[in-house]
Amino acid sequence: MATELERVMDDWLARIEDRLAHWLPPKKRYNARFHEAMRYSTLGGGKRIRPLLIYATGVATGQDLDQLDGPACAVEMIHVYSLIHDDLPCMDDDDLRRGKPTCHKAFGEATAVLAGDALQALAFKVLSTDPAMTDDPAIRLGMIATIATAAGYQGMAGGQAIDLDSVGKKLSLVALEEMHIYKTGELIRAAVNMAASNRPDLAPELARGLNRYAECIGLAFQIRDDILDIEGDTETLGKQSGADQALGKPTFPDIIGLSESKARLHELHQQALAALDGFDASADILRDIANYIVARIH
Amino acid sequence: MATELERVMDDWLARIEDRLAHWLPPKKRYNARFHEAMRYSTLGGGKRIRPLLIYATGVATGQDLDQLDGPACAVEMIHVYSLIHDDLPCMDDDDLRRGKPTCHKAFGEATAVLAGDALQALAFKVLSTDPAMTDDPAIRLGMIATIATAAGYQGMAGGQAIDLDSVGKKLSLVALEEMHIYKTGELIRAAVNMAASNRPDLAPELARGLNRYAECIGLAFQIRDDILDIEGDTETLGKQSGADQALGKPTFPDIIGLSESKARLHELHQQALAALDGFDASADILRDIANYIVARIH
Repeated sequence: MATELERVMDDWLARIEDRLAHWLPPKKRYNARFHEAMRYSTLGGGKRIRPLLIYATGVATGQDLDQLDGPACAVEMIHVYSLIHDDLPCMDDDDLRRGKPTCHKAFGEATAVLAGDALQALAFKVLSTDPAMTDDPAIRLGMIATIATAAGYQGMAGGQAIDLDSVGKKLSLVALEEMHIYKTGELIRAAVNMAASNRPDLAPELARGLNRYAECIGLAFQIRDDILDIEGDTETLGKQSGADQALGKPTFPDIIGLSESKARLHELHQQALAALDGFDASADILRDIANYIVARIH
Repeated sequence: MATELERVMDDWLARIEDRLAHWLPPKKRYNARFHEAMRYSTLGGGKRIRPLLIYATGVATGQDLDQLDGPACAVEMIHVYSLIHDDLPCMDDDDLRRGKPTCHKAFGEATAVLAGDALQALAFKVLSTDPAMTDDPAIRLGMIATIATAAGYQGMAGGQAIDLDSVGKKLSLVALEEMHIYKTGELIRAAVNMAASNRPDLAPELARGLNRYAECIGLAFQIRDDILDIEGDTETLGKQSGADQALGKPTFPDIIGLSESKARLHELHQQALAALDGFDASADILRDIANYIVARIH
């Protein structure tokens, strides 16, 4: 039997693709190569986990999804820009992303840096101008504050800097979890919390449950990533397997072993589901996303 | 006799330095190197033209400057992040900035990319959360939209991409001006317009005058830069003179000659002053900034 997530997946993936294409610069002659680099990296691929989380949170809280297209685009643009910059030769030096050449391989390093920069700016343009979003400017401002914090030195960029500093070092489990909370967890949490903030009348305990859910799946996502880096194969992953190990990056299996990593993943999965106990079947897509994250093979 | 600008300059420079330091991440042990890179590039230098323009526009429109500290910080953070990225080896490959080693020379390329990324995010965090700014969330949203557009593919990042594409090419004067309007003009215009937007009751013709003033000085600033690249010396500039020529970048003197460039600079200067005709002596600092821009030696 198809899960609730499977029932909506194709629709939502097409939806986010369409909205992203709407906001991205046109493929016109003027500055065409730069615009093409932004479109190349953003469109036509990716798991779209963060937009899916936003829509799923919208369904769980009984919202009109049209109001959430803007936040969904913004969080995906921030995510994509971070991938472009993380793949640069001076960072992880990756040649493959989503099964195709990375942005700098296809368009050169300088264009890749600028495409990432422009995508970050575009995320904030969407949140500040999308006419389909809430009429309440204070809610929009809250969303902007949430994503700006999650993307910056107290979030994604800070986590990536800790990551770079950790290469070749033996981190403690606490330090490793902290790094990942910054690097990927905060943006995932921002996605869910932005969507929840669009329902200011949401009961505080439900909002707290969503936040807790997002914390758990954010970390679970990373542990699954580390396990896949060992157990996955390059073709399915769409990127080089064993890449983290080759770079000397600390991983969960590295520090606590493979079977302990799987146990921690299981524990976070259960905690994520428990955090949704206050919700009825409307949160089933969020539950399915948690299940998908722990079971995914790429 | 000291100009109005000279009277306020030290005060305003200290003010923006203080506010930037407040928002930047602390120099603490945790992620200290990354935080230091952000502080190193942002603090202790720079002409602070954009913050000065914001405060000067505030004075011209009779505003409380406390409400403008946030926009002043945000626009300077966007400017600084663009310098960090523009200096990277894959871009202009500059070793010196403001008389000291560029961010990537001092902290490495990866940290420089991330420090720039985090500064862009921080700019939006400031605009969305600074408690001293306007109580009207719609005005804040308008400022965020203004700076996000000016920083992105329709502004600074787009202009830099055109710049990269233009190396070694002979541009027309129109194409060169267009590139600079994108690359530096839009952010300067955003600074003035953000400050003006904080006075929603400002007469439309005065708002239009400020916008026109900003357009003129933005382009004048760039022409002066190109002239300095030829006539300035490295020590005074704080960066390598002749660098643009060495990189094969198209410049105004390149395309229309040095004396025509000076004539165009003079014309823009006069247009900038004329655009302020609707203002009384309250706009004298803006007038002084226009005078400074055309006469500056670094």
